[in-house]
Amino acid sequence: MESQVDEELSKLVHKSIRMCDEGQKPEASKNHNNNTSRGGGERGKDKPGKFVLKTPKGTRDYGPVEMAVRRQVFDVIHSVFHMHGAVEIETPVFELKDVLTGKYGEDSKLIYDLEDQGGEKLSLRYDLTVPFARYVAMNKITNIKRYHVARVYRRDNPAMTRGRYREFYQCDFDIAGQFDAMIPDAECVQLVHQVLSRLDLGDFTIKINHRKILDGLFGVCGVPLEKFRPICSAVDKLDKSPWEEVRKEMVDEKGLDEEVADLIGEYVKLSGKEELIEKLKNDERLKNSKDAQAGLSDMTLLYQYCQSLGCESKVVFDMGLARGLDYYTGVIYEAVLTAGQNQGKDGPVGSVAGGGRYDGLVGMFDPKKKTVPCVGLSFGIERLFTIHEQKQRALSEKLRATQTEVFVAAACKGMVHERLKIISLLHEAGIKTESSYKNNPKILNQLQYAEDNQIPLVVLIGESEVEAGVVKVREVTTRDETTVKREDLVTTVKQKLGTK
Amino acid sequence: MESQVDEELSKLVHKSIRMCDEGQKPEASKNHNNNTSRGGGERGKDKPGKFVLKTPKGTRDYGPVEMAVRRQVFDVIHSVFHMHGAVEIETPVFELKDVLTGKYGEDSKLIYDLEDQGGEKLSLRYDLTVPFARYVAMNKITNIKRYHVARVYRRDNPAMTRGRYREFYQCDFDIAGQFDAMIPDAECVQLVHQVLSRLDLGDFTIKINHRKILDGLFGVCGVPLEKFRPICSAVDKLDKSPWEEVRKEMVDEKGLDEEVADLIGEYVKLSGKEELIEKLKNDERLKNSKDAQAGLSDMTLLYQYCQSLGCESKVVFDMGLARGLDYYTGVIYEAVLTAGQNQGKDGPVGSVAGGGRYDGLVGMFDPKKKTVPCVGLSFGIERLFTIHEQKQRALSEKLRATQTEVFVAAACKGMVHERLKIISLLHEAGIKTESSYKNNPKILNQLQYAEDNQIPLVVLIGESEVEAGVVKVREVTTRDETTVKREDLVTTVKQKLGTK
Repeated sequence: MESQVDEELSKLVHKSIRMCDEGQKPEASKNHNNNTSRGGGERGKDKPGKFVLKTPKGTRDYGPVEMAVRRQVFDVIHSVFHMHGAVEIETPVFELKDVLTGKYGEDSKLIYDLEDQGGEKLSLRYDLTVPFARYVAMNKITNIKRYHVARVYRRDNPAMTRGRYREFYQCDFDIAGQFDAMIPDAECVQLVHQVLSRLDLGDFTIKINHRKILDGLFGVCGVPLEKFRPICSAVDKLDKSPWEEVRKEMVDEKGLDEEVADLIGEYVKLSGKEELIEKLKNDERLKNSKDAQAGLSDMTLLYQYCQSLGCESKVVFDMGLARGLDYYTGVIYEAVLTAGQNQGKDGPVGSVAGGGRYDGLVGMFDPKKKTVPCVGLSFGIERLFTIHEQKQRALSEKLRATQTEVFVAAACKGMVHERLKIISLLHEAGIKTESSYKNNPKILNQLQYAEDNQIPLVVLIGESEVEAGVVKVREVTTRDETTVKREDLVTTVKQKLGTK
Repeated sequence: MESQVDEELSKLVHKSIRMCDEGQKPEASKNHNNNTSRGGGERGKDKPGKFVLKTPKGTRDYGPVEMAVRRQVFDVIHSVFHMHGAVEIETPVFELKDVLTGKYGEDSKLIYDLEDQGGEKLSLRYDLTVPFARYVAMNKITNIKRYHVARVYRRDNPAMTRGRYREFYQCDFDIAGQFDAMIPDAECVQLVHQVLSRLDLGDFTIKINHRKILDGLFGVCGVPLEKFRPICSAVDKLDKSPWEEVRKEMVDEKGLDEEVADLIGEYVKLSGKEELIEKLKNDERLKNSKDAQAGLSDMTLLYQYCQSLGCESKVVFDMGLARGLDYYTGVIYEAVLTAGQNQGKDGPVGSVAGGGRYDGLVGMFDPKKKTVPCVGLSFGIERLFTIHEQKQRALSEKLRATQTEVFVAAACKGMVHERLKIISLLHEAGIKTESSYKNNPKILNQLQYAEDNQIPLVVLIGESEVEAGVVKVREVTTRDETTVKREDLVTTVKQKLGTK
């Protein structure tokens, strides 16, 4: 059967032809990473009176391809959360300012406040943990295993090329409730292990430590009680700074005796496996600390549970891990990618997940100070996006920003109603279908669009097809064509898509 | 084989027993709709000095069951967006204040501003349309079909029982680009039709009108040009207020001549189908307006395309539809649920989706005023959630907040490591598995937990099972049990779950 479609197709010059008049090219590749605010300063201030088109400092837009990458990462994380039977909650993007006050120590200066427009004093959330504790206390919840994926806000110095923004996603998983020691804690370590394994971003280590071990250590070394948190906060910088700098902060800024600092220095450089835990249990100094011994016993139990959960090989006991936040009370952990490919332009990507036990936070919100013990973790998802995207690019996979399965094309003029009818028919069957927004688009442009967007099938019509009540179904990669009756179109398309 | 599991099970007293010591009951049913801030005033202000545990005015938390409902609604909407080949984008939650200035007319006072903490002047986004236009202009995009699902912020008077909040979701779908008349516009109408049909929330109507018809009408009736937008904004209130009140606003507040108002009144009460369009084309007054005639021609074409797309039966041409926002320039539409069950406690739910053509907005951001024509729509998703939830409750379906497939239970003490090993094994195979966080949970409590949470399978172990290297797989609803070797566990579980 010689149809207009065939005639038109015979004119088809090959891919190399660039089409410019279709006005329906996908924008994904163009937008991708095209953000004028990157690394941008406060240009709005520089030229008063002139309107500057940008996003706020430290923020950016995400284009179609980037969003497709994020969806992939989110899907993996969600699936692991669901595997653990976690429920989802959502809290407002801002909280009463009082809710955030006194929770973040030195970092409180980074909180975004809302303008007082009459009413309550509000701040944008700084993390998802404090809103979670507020939620647990407010609703008098005794136990819950929840996840929460949302953006948080910090007026920090942005380093956008390293994936550090003022607005960024956190993926949190927390277990609240009075349970037996280390079982929920081990589940958190297992969950980090599962997510990083499934994302397949190269090798990683899960560092663990315990606030009671650190506090016990500070005690036996002679740190005054009121300096425990500031000294802990100094130790926390060991992953970015050499010991000499940390020691300087302890001695010069925080007024610690040099000998005490040196003593701490000997311990915080230790890292190892179970044998280190056993060694420290018998350490002459730590033997005298109940706190340290309790923490070390927890570590032993945690290691055992991790063994049964099959995730102990990645776990390293690291005495130098301290975690910045004040509210941790027990086990703390942090996952770092160790593979060479994860070195960004500006150095290693560093920590991609972290967390720990915070048994006192919920009590801070309860009128009677009744608390609910909690343990949880947070994925630094922006870094995971960056690495996942690098990996995709390295594989030179072309990521699709859409999922379209069929493009409806016309070989001649005056077919717009026929195209709409076919779209309606295919949509009715749940088939993802697009067509041109032009009344009379050129056939070459239509076919090129399908090819550029990796749409697997084209449904082609011309006057003779319409008259005969048939359509042509064309496979884009093979250019193989079948003519089918319109009533068989859905079945044929599903067959070809393998979704029958 | 007589095992400890069997012994323990023989003691199993029926469902009616309430268990209290397990400490792992799901919190979903408890939290559900338990929000102390509902309808709450600014209680934080009433008692200065005293810390009040609440969410900010006009906002709320969403608990596990509510989130599960939202996921269902979002999934339907996402699937329709993907069916149309839309890409996803994301923009920051705040914009430079200048970006929002002069876009919302009278409603600008409802914008949340951020405190000036040194740096840029920022405001929380008020909708997703203006950020989209800013994105299109900033990235010099000539065409894109995108969706964006995110929360927006309005310092409005909250009416939380009616689903009106200060922080709420919008689901936006927009088509930007220079295309042939009414093809993208018809796709938007079709998409509203598809989403509302699939959500199955009862009957609905899609009202359509055209800003050019309204402007043409105002012109021929004698409305002065500078009063076009204020009078349009008055007409917009017709869905909530009777004509008499709207007329009063026109005459008393906005200084329109009484006769002019009465003349407008005759037209804006008209609604109908194609025959009304034809009638108005021949109307003595509207014949004299080029604008009105152009708008009416668009309406005819839109109706024809809707016919081909199979969605014209729900479309009603309503001369009283005006839409509040200033930026519309062409077709406008609004979907309302009409079924009786959708009357909330405080009256009908009203509009659940709306949108229109806004050809000038992108140009407002372009330094050379180069514009990109746009048409789009926004689902008022909070209302859809409310109605969907009511429907679910009416069906007395118990919604699950989790997806757990297997609960691992122990019939005797000292089984925690064995349970963890089985969890690890099942997770490895992608099976959603939970267990108790207690060392030695009671068997009754474990089985009750599985039943309460609608977990279909329980994997049971006791000492004899561990010795023999087997486990029991119990189907929770039938209480049917099978003993299988541990190496066959994954296969058996998959078989029973029907996911082999």
